[in-house]
Amino acid sequence: MLVWAEQAPIDASDRGLAYGDGVFETIRVYRGGPILLRQHLHRMLMGARRLGIALTGDQLADSVAQALARYAASDDWVLKLILTRGSGGRGYVPSSVGEPCLICSRHDTPAQPDSSGVIAQVAQHPLVVNPALAGLKSLNRLDQVMASMELRPGVYDVLLTDGAGRLLEGGRTNVLLHHQSGWMTPPVRSVAVHGIMLDYVTASLQAAGRPVRERPIPLSMLNRPGCLGLYLLNSVVGVVPVRRVGCQHLPIDRTLATICAPLTSLK
Amino acid sequence: MLVWAEQAPIDASDRGLAYGDGVFETIRVYRGGPILLRQHLHRMLMGARRLGIALTGDQLADSVAQALARYAASDDWVLKLILTRGSGGRGYVPSSVGEPCLICSRHDTPAQPDSSGVIAQVAQHPLVVNPALAGLKSLNRLDQVMASMELRPGVYDVLLTDGAGRLLEGGRTNVLLHHQSGWMTPPVRSVAVHGIMLDYVTASLQAAGRPVRERPIPLSMLNRPGCLGLYLLNSVVGVVPVRRVGCQHLPIDRTLATICAPLTSLK
Repeated sequence: MLVWAEQAPIDASDRGLAYGDGVFETIRVYRGGPILLRQHLHRMLMGARRLGIALTGDQLADSVAQALARYAASDDWVLKLILTRGSGGRGYVPSSVGEPCLICSRHDTPAQPDSSGVIAQVAQHPLVVNPALAGLKSLNRLDQVMASMELRPGVYDVLLTDGAGRLLEGGRTNVLLHHQSGWMTPPVRSVAVHGIMLDYVTASLQAAGRPVRERPIPLSMLNRPGCLGLYLLNSVVGVVPVRRVGCQHLPIDRTLATICAPLTSLK
Repeated sequence: MLVWAEQAPIDASDRGLAYGDGVFETIRVYRGGPILLRQHLHRMLMGARRLGIALTGDQLADSVAQALARYAASDDWVLKLILTRGSGGRGYVPSSVGEPCLICSRHDTPAQPDSSGVIAQVAQHPLVVNPALAGLKSLNRLDQVMASMELRPGVYDVLLTDGAGRLLEGGRTNVLLHHQSGWMTPPVRSVAVHGIMLDYVTASLQAAGRPVRERPIPLSMLNRPGCLGLYLLNSVVGVVPVRRVGCQHLPIDRTLATICAPLTSLK
C-alpha cells in the first residue's frame, strides 16, 4: 500500500509504530535526478528481505517513480521512504499482518555543512549492535536519537562508540579515517547502518588504488600523529571532513575531493 | 495529546513511527480492575524520563482513567498505551518536536496458556542489549519480532539468548528459574524489558523467604538435574510454567502457585 504522508495518516496499529518493524531510506533529489537511487532501492529491498517483508523491486521502483513525479516542484529536495510490515498480527508475531505499507514524504535538503570542516563530539550513549541486525536501516533508531540529544550547539554530529573507546559511526553518518597506514572504516558487522555513501567512496578509493580496510578504530587514533583526516559520510550531504572532535583539532584532508565526484553529479 | 486509536490515525511524521522514539505498556483489565496499574504507570513514567519525553504522572493517570471509562464494555480486556515523543524534529535530534502523543487502544485478552505447562523454543536470533537502554519497554522491538517469527506451531514463546548460550528472556516474557540452589533470573542489565510481573513474583518470593538472585543462566542448566522448573512471566497472562524447551522436557514446578496470588486478584 502506497501512502502519501501529507495526505493519508497512518493506522495506529501499524507495526512500524508499534515495534519499529520496518526500514527507511532518505534519497536526495537534485535537479530531477535522485542521487544513488539504484543503491537506495537495493538497500531497501535487501532490508525488506531480511525482515521478511514482501516487497518486489518493481513495486518499489513504481512507487518511487510516482513519488518523484508528485514531489518534483523544487530543484533540490529529499525523498523519504518508510516501509513497514503493515498493520496487525498478534503481538510480535507477524502472522496475520495485512500488506506492507510504503510511506513517501518530501523534505527540504538540510543546510550544507561547512566545507572547511565540521565539529563532532563523542557521545556518552554507547552503541551496541546486534550482529543479526547490523547494517540494517531499520525503524529501531533509539540509539541514534539518544546520542543526538547530546549534541551541543555548533556541533555537526555525534560520534558513537562501542562504550570501550572504539569509534563505530556518526549519529547520522558513517566514518572513514585517512591514516598514515591507509584508509579505514569500522567493521561492517559492528555498525548500525551500512551507508550507501560509504560504499560509493570505498569503491572510488579502491578504483584509485587506495583500498579501505575494515578494522576497529580506537578513538585514541584520532589524536596521534598518523591521523591524516576523518570524514563523515551520508548520502544526503556527501563527504564531510571533521576539523575538530571535542577539543581535539584534526588535520583537514583534501584527498577525497580529488578522488570522488561531487555528490550532486552522482546518478 | 491523547489519541484514541480506533478514532484518530497517526501523523506520518510521528517519531514513534520514524525511530521507535517512545515506550508502551499493555495492561490487563479484569472486571473493571486494571491489574498492577500503579506499576505499569510507574514504568511508563520512568521510561519517558529516560527518553526525555515530558509526561507527568497526573497527565498519564488522567488519560488512563478516561481510557478505562471509554473501553469498559467487557469483563476482561487489555489496554495498550503507546507514548511517543510526538511529531517533528530535524532528523534524530528532537529539538523542535511538538507535544508527546499518548495512543490508547483496546484489545482482547489473549487465550490463557495451558496451565499444565507450555512449550518454548530457543530462538536463533540473538538478543544484544545496550546497557543504556536495558529494561526499557521502548518501541524498538525488532529483536522480539525477528525471534518471534521463528515460532513453530504449538510453541508458546521463543527463548532469547545472548548468542553465547545464556538465556536472557522470552520473546514477550521474562524468565525465572527454580533451581536446586535457589531461584534465579538473568541480570536486569542484560535484559531488554524489565517486567512488572517479574518484579511482583520476585517480591512475593522474597516475602516468603526465597530470594531471587540475578545471575547468568546458561541454557545447559535446564537439562541438568538441579533444574526444578522454568517459568515465563508477563503482566497480561501472569505466571506460565514451561514443560518443554525444544525436545528437552522440564519438571513442572508448582511452588509459585502456592506463593503468588492469582493474577486476576492483583490490584
